[in-house]
Amino acid sequence: MPEPLRLKGISASAGYAEGPLFNLDAVVARYAGKATAADERLALEAAISIATGRLATLIEAADGDAADILEFQIAMLEDDALTGPAFTAIASGQPADAAWRQALDAEISGYETSDQDYFRARAADMRDIRDQVLRALTEDSEAAAPAGAIFYGDDIAPTRFLETDWSSGGGIALKAGSAASHVAMLARSRGVPMIVGLGACPTNPAGVALLDAEHGGIVLAPSKAEIEAFRLLSSSFAARRDKAETYLTKPAVTKAGTAVRVQVNIADPSDVDGIDVSTCDGVGLMRTEFLFGKTLPDEETQYRAYRKVLEWAGEKPVTIRTIDAGGDKPVPGFTAEETNPFLGLRGIRLSLARPEVFRVQIRALLRAAIHGNLKVMFPMIAVIDEYQQATTLFVEEQAGLVARGVAQKMPPLGIMVEVPSVAIAPEAFAEVAFFSIGSNDLTQYVMAAARDNASVAHLNSVRHPAVLRLIASVAAFGRAQEIPVSLCGDAGGDPGAIPALLEAGLRDLSVVPAQLAMAKAAIADVSI
Amino acid sequence: MPEPLRLKGISASAGYAEGPLFNLDAVVARYAGKATAADERLALEAAISIATGRLATLIEAADGDAADILEFQIAMLEDDALTGPAFTAIASGQPADAAWRQALDAEISGYETSDQDYFRARAADMRDIRDQVLRALTEDSEAAAPAGAIFYGDDIAPTRFLETDWSSGGGIALKAGSAASHVAMLARSRGVPMIVGLGACPTNPAGVALLDAEHGGIVLAPSKAEIEAFRLLSSSFAARRDKAETYLTKPAVTKAGTAVRVQVNIADPSDVDGIDVSTCDGVGLMRTEFLFGKTLPDEETQYRAYRKVLEWAGEKPVTIRTIDAGGDKPVPGFTAEETNPFLGLRGIRLSLARPEVFRVQIRALLRAAIHGNLKVMFPMIAVIDEYQQATTLFVEEQAGLVARGVAQKMPPLGIMVEVPSVAIAPEAFAEVAFFSIGSNDLTQYVMAAARDNASVAHLNSVRHPAVLRLIASVAAFGRAQEIPVSLCGDAGGDPGAIPALLEAGLRDLSVVPAQLAMAKAAIADVSI
Repeated sequence: MPEPLRLKGISASAGYAEGPLFNLDAVVARYAGKATAADERLALEAAISIATGRLATLIEAADGDAADILEFQIAMLEDDALTGPAFTAIASGQPADAAWRQALDAEISGYETSDQDYFRARAADMRDIRDQVLRALTEDSEAAAPAGAIFYGDDIAPTRFLETDWSSGGGIALKAGSAASHVAMLARSRGVPMIVGLGACPTNPAGVALLDAEHGGIVLAPSKAEIEAFRLLSSSFAARRDKAETYLTKPAVTKAGTAVRVQVNIADPSDVDGIDVSTCDGVGLMRTEFLFGKTLPDEETQYRAYRKVLEWAGEKPVTIRTIDAGGDKPVPGFTAEETNPFLGLRGIRLSLARPEVFRVQIRALLRAAIHGNLKVMFPMIAVIDEYQQATTLFVEEQAGLVARGVAQKMPPLGIMVEVPSVAIAPEAFAEVAFFSIGSNDLTQYVMAAARDNASVAHLNSVRHPAVLRLIASVAAFGRAQEIPVSLCGDAGGDPGAIPALLEAGLRDLSVVPAQLAMAKAAIADVSI
Repeated sequence: MPEPLRLKGISASAGYAEGPLFNLDAVVARYAGKATAADERLALEAAISIATGRLATLIEAADGDAADILEFQIAMLEDDALTGPAFTAIASGQPADAAWRQALDAEISGYETSDQDYFRARAADMRDIRDQVLRALTEDSEAAAPAGAIFYGDDIAPTRFLETDWSSGGGIALKAGSAASHVAMLARSRGVPMIVGLGACPTNPAGVALLDAEHGGIVLAPSKAEIEAFRLLSSSFAARRDKAETYLTKPAVTKAGTAVRVQVNIADPSDVDGIDVSTCDGVGLMRTEFLFGKTLPDEETQYRAYRKVLEWAGEKPVTIRTIDAGGDKPVPGFTAEETNPFLGLRGIRLSLARPEVFRVQIRALLRAAIHGNLKVMFPMIAVIDEYQQATTLFVEEQAGLVARGVAQKMPPLGIMVEVPSVAIAPEAFAEVAFFSIGSNDLTQYVMAAARDNASVAHLNSVRHPAVLRLIASVAAFGRAQEIPVSLCGDAGGDPGAIPALLEAGLRDLSVVPAQLAMAKAAIADVSI
């Protein structure tokens, strides 16, 4: 019996999972050799075609980043320069799996050992492609991850997450990874337990594992006693979650009777389809990046998307954020290539630099405003001048619509508070209609620790006194000036952070729909 | 006569230049065709060899980033896959210049139109390589930039800057570029006037231009009256600079008699060779990245470098910053590949993650400390825990040296204040021996605007009230706790920023040696 091994990580999506460990880094391809070189060639062609088809299917459901990665991978698989050497090797008698692996490994190692960033970065994509075709090649003979498996490895590809059926449980435990990654966001919204930042493991683990993604730990080769203790914790979490569900339909209120508004963050108009509007106080953040996935969207497409959510919300407010491209959300033909995109031309900076694109969104918003209780906010505001420029564009476009006799309405215009300059010196922003604190970005700037970088995840904490001090100062400024202040970062839905946020003076949080019940339950536990 | 055209930019290195415009973006190759295909082939071989040799020469004098870029370019020039098509075209009758240009353009356009970052980024390097060989090919027949020319274009390559003889004047005026770029730093330290961020120019300018890199403007096709006015400004600047020189030997003091300490920033031990130690109050920042250029330096190499500067300074303090790798200073084999390196594993974070490397530097510092008035500071501290971990390593290494009977001394251990968390909540750092404000990084985090990105240069200002408020709060905390506070960012040597810094309560600035006189003169003008 191996000794139990306990590894400590960071919770990326709360929950518990008990199941067989599926080692992402040690997938061994068991390929069934074919009779002739011609059959080997057909097998590789089929595998490439399966891998390409699978990528194409994933693209359908993917947005922004994920779609970009997948498109690149398809382009590579369709490139004869990449696949040619493998077919040559097959012609000279090699089995398809070895031929493919060797051809790709040769390509990859050239890049891996390069001094150049571009090549090293490209190597990761090449490994992905290699493994996807190997998986397709060995599909018939290789067992997939068992149902309810805990995926364990350096990192997990979005493709893998999207392909997995999570309905029978399971979870994710990563040696690297990040709680702010794309996969982590998916895991939270689908309730899949996930931890990141476990670090290197001294042994090569296998067998049953206990994933505690509430506290951020995993036990490998657990003892009987540990399994029993784990199941108690797990049931207690399930019970709390079930109990939390009972809070869903009630207004959020603390133990001391303080009312807290809880709104939802949505990333796509279809997100509201599964939400009973009576369970939330409106939409605190509607992202618009989904519209900018492939091409720049036209006014009508945008108008319909905004109108759908406004009509769903009825009289409740819907706060739409103007396009927040750049940073970790590149848009082909719109965002620029930058060395530090989080500190670059993104959010309102980019919209002001490309007014011809921004004005389309502004017209769609002005027209949609007549269909509900719309509020509009600008991301990445650093100086008041940016707010004033954006406001001027709204006024100009409104005048244009009026002149053309188009129905429209000017919504209240607010800002995201995520650049530290605004939180440190909010007095310059007294003319703004409302503030919405973007705790993810604010935290990464205050701590100078990128939110998607596992190496600095230990520094990226919204509960650091400096971050909380800024939040409290914005909340106080808002109260003094009668400017509404809400918060729409991940912290708003984190039961561990909610007490500190209320303590800092916030009374308005916006959370992802999956966290609505837990957030309300956590609020009910605060004694303020 | 064309109309005078005035363009507004941002000063990157103060000064004036009047001279012929040399358009960096429109270098027309005038190639003298050869008699036979064999001669064409020889001409291209010679040009590639000249370009390679020139790059190799530049590498000698280059550090970190610059060396990396140059090494990559050499590797590409030595790659037959790149050069082959040009030689094939020559064999079929093309002249060398057209063959080279077509071969490279074909390669480049594939990358330029790619959806992928890696390829687009690689395209810029390929263009560089193309142009370097074209320059070598056309060398005999093409006029180089005239003496005293004002280089004008999108951006200027470090290679071009390093090759240019600036002794007869001249300057740099860039449509894009950044005041924090490598070339801008070189320009400041060598006194070459430079402006950036001019934006697109409506016409294709040529002829004499007037570069006012004090206020950040350029006049193309100037009128007689403008030339006269410019010469007045230019002489006034020269007079001020000459007058400033008279301040060099005196202690810095304001109009009201307030004494200000002015130290120097050095990047390499040889920097002190040209400085009279009596003109400064010590070394406020000695960088140690120069030691980590190619390989990780051994203890003896480091010890000798530190000792040299300590002995030069005598009793005056020398503040050595432990290795600040990462960010825009990658070190092969040490720093990691990151999407946002400014927000990544850099400075003390990296040193603590790689203690086996850090301990070598610590031992060298402890041993060097007996040779002068050493202070040591840690870059990128975000939380007190990092300071405590680093201090523990110093204590452990000291004990090791004591046990081995090696002479050593524990220096005061301070921190850079550049991560906003420290400046926002300094009370956690009361145990620290001293603070040194890194205004460049602090500003880029507070404004969320990378200091090397021209697109957001308008936001990156140390004089933004939020940045000044943090500086003032650190200064006040230092006074209250009797912890010395200095500032060692570029702002300390900027006459435009000095009044605000003194106003914020600072009385200790550290500047690059080239700005020492101007900084003292600017201090003498402040009425605090």
